[in-house]
Amino acid sequence: MKFCPSCGAATEIRVPAGDTRLRAICTRCETIHYVNPKMVLGTIPIWQDQVLLCRRAIEPRLGMWTLPAGFMEVGESTADGAMRETLEEAGARVALGPLFSVFDIPHVDQVHLFYLAELRDLNFAAGPESLEVQLFHERDIPWNTIAFRTVTATLRFYFHDRSTGVMSVHTGDIREVQLPHESQPHLDQPR
Amino acid sequence: MKFCPSCGAATEIRVPAGDTRLRAICTRCETIHYVNPKMVLGTIPIWQDQVLLCRRAIEPRLGMWTLPAGFMEVGESTADGAMRETLEEAGARVALGPLFSVFDIPHVDQVHLFYLAELRDLNFAAGPESLEVQLFHERDIPWNTIAFRTVTATLRFYFHDRSTGVMSVHTGDIREVQLPHESQPHLDQPR
Repeated sequence: MKFCPSCGAATEIRVPAGDTRLRAICTRCETIHYVNPKMVLGTIPIWQDQVLLCRRAIEPRLGMWTLPAGFMEVGESTADGAMRETLEEAGARVALGPLFSVFDIPHVDQVHLFYLAELRDLNFAAGPESLEVQLFHERDIPWNTIAFRTVTATLRFYFHDRSTGVMSVHTGDIREVQLPHESQPHLDQPR
Repeated sequence: MKFCPSCGAATEIRVPAGDTRLRAICTRCETIHYVNPKMVLGTIPIWQDQVLLCRRAIEPRLGMWTLPAGFMEVGESTADGAMRETLEEAGARVALGPLFSVFDIPHVDQVHLFYLAELRDLNFAAGPESLEVQLFHERDIPWNTIAFRTVTATLRFYFHDRSTGVMSVHTGDIREVQLPHESQPHLDQPR
């Protein structure tokens, strides 16, 4: 942040009085501008024993598969946002279930939240940010072309929990999280 | 946001191509500036059957009691941030437990997350943003002077879960959430 969003003057980067971190501070109006991580909200849309995935029409990871998800907007709750993204990206109306996963990705300053959800009908369709949307059985999930590690993690935990019959809330740092049915500790490699 | 943080030129408020919401867009460099909700992270610091609360030394709600909590910073995970705030506000070192509550407060564009935590020792002390910090038994919690409704909700759910012996993750919109042991549906009135 080089310029003050409030008055347009140049900012300087220094630690404000009473603080311990470098902030952008306006050299004219002295406003301190804080920068905070962003939330990404999504759903795991279920129809019987299948999960709805979207193939991305935009960068990053154009052409790869993902759960419907996107940045939280002002004025909405996490549940509102998860349903909105599911409608926008997959054209899908869902009955929202409980919170399922909360993953930190500190190196990109994001927190990803996914809710369980049941499709209300099969009238889904790719939105402008998706090339196609499709229901997948567990055996057909395109693990090698999943766009984001938080989506891989959420899907792995979902199928694990479904096999045990106990759904719980999964949390962790995506650098460290150990997925069910996975031997390698790092998630950087596509699987 | 009246001025572009990237180049300092005036912004205009309009819906960008392919979007559906009003955004601040730079009239010179055309950067679109998104505004997103912020996360507040905190802990429920436990010592045997007592909970550690902080009395606020700053506005808003100066003089009222709260769980240690504050805004998430860039470069940290939600767990990191919850422990950092507990150290900063209460001088308390904790062993972090599982995620306990996630509450949306859409009218102020915040999401509050609280983790269960066990105090490592009794060497806690008020930080610069606290007037005092104190351990409370359930019967002594100052319900009428709790600073924030998400803290009231988190404490109510904590004591409820402790009484049943089953800790779970609690979520909801703070406008709508129904607390255990509470007859009134609205949380606006201090209790």
